[in-house]
Amino acid sequence: MTKGNEPEADNDTPVPNGEGPISERMQAILDKGSVLFAEKGYDATSMRDIAAAAGVSKALLYHHFASKDEIYARVSFYATHNLYSFVEERIPSDGSAEVKLRAFMRAAATFFAEHRSAWIAASNAFWSDPDRHRLEARIARRRAFEQSLRGIIQEGIDAGQFGVTDPAMAGRLILSGINWMNRWFDPEKGMTAEEIVDQYADIVLNGMIRR
Amino acid sequence: MTKGNEPEADNDTPVPNGEGPISERMQAILDKGSVLFAEKGYDATSMRDIAAAAGVSKALLYHHFASKDEIYARVSFYATHNLYSFVEERIPSDGSAEVKLRAFMRAAATFFAEHRSAWIAASNAFWSDPDRHRLEARIARRRAFEQSLRGIIQEGIDAGQFGVTDPAMAGRLILSGINWMNRWFDPEKGMTAEEIVDQYADIVLNGMIRR
Repeated sequence: MTKGNEPEADNDTPVPNGEGPISERMQAILDKGSVLFAEKGYDATSMRDIAAAAGVSKALLYHHFASKDEIYARVSFYATHNLYSFVEERIPSDGSAEVKLRAFMRAAATFFAEHRSAWIAASNAFWSDPDRHRLEARIARRRAFEQSLRGIIQEGIDAGQFGVTDPAMAGRLILSGINWMNRWFDPEKGMTAEEIVDQYADIVLNGMIRR
Repeated sequence: MTKGNEPEADNDTPVPNGEGPISERMQAILDKGSVLFAEKGYDATSMRDIAAAAGVSKALLYHHFASKDEIYARVSFYATHNLYSFVEERIPSDGSAEVKLRAFMRAAATFFAEHRSAWIAASNAFWSDPDRHRLEARIARRRAFEQSLRGIIQEGIDAGQFGVTDPAMAGRLILSGINWMNRWFDPEKGMTAEEIVDQYADIVLNGMIRR
């Protein structure tokens, strides 16, 4: 909690923190890995599967990544970290709490739609991460993300705009709606992720606004 | 859709439909199995684990259940089926849509609190059920459950009480809030499941009610 704009930096984990560039080939492997993890789950996905999907040899795969565990770590860690950054960057600093909350929800939906496999892989395996240290780092990142949402809701309460008493619960309802999309949203049919979240925002904001 | 009170009976699946009684010992095995499936996941749980947790020999376990698959099927199928029945029974037939919706959410929370392991096991493995036929039966049951929720919301719209335009989306937001509790709710601390869902109901109902 010392660096201001990077409050949950975890320099003592072996997981890359997203600051260094990675090659296009590495990114392509991570993308294929995330799709496999999302579709088959961590246990059922092998290094052979990932190599085949990425069109590289197993030897080359191991040249880039020490283990399946490392690929999984990067996929899920990047998904959590990138979501957090993506959303934070899209919240207007000078808007009302309502404007900020809509921007938060919209940005999360956009990220979800654009990085669906990585999100699902990270979400499905969130609690089953075999590396306890990495799991804790991700929980800390998620907590910071939830805190930023609660902070917006608290702003609305302080300004007399929102009538809810418990920002944590209102925040959980919002995140539940977004997170549960993993389980039913189909980009091939019906509404876009953004349209769905806009409907959620209409209900939740209408429900929170003081009259 | 022919029997009225049992609209999605699936007589052609090998899965018990919950009508026949099972012995106390079988129920105890299912309870232990549901805890293991919830904690470790389907793949990592063995028949040996279940036998040990239930305090029975593997031979006796196999006497009652042909396979891990069958235990899993019963756990997850009963959880889905029983939730549906439990909630339906607790919706007052003569209340307003608001009263019915609160009853629906309350009942789901109570069921969740009382049968948490079975719910989590069923939810975690919902899409990875190895038996496609059984998966389809469960999807049909879930659809009926969602339809009953949407029906209540539609009632409120028809009565001029609710101002939402899309009952499906409002219903999804409500179910998302309840379902996502799997991932963070800790009965050992903080609010009860019912208290959490009451807060969600306050926000969502306030958001839907026409003024």
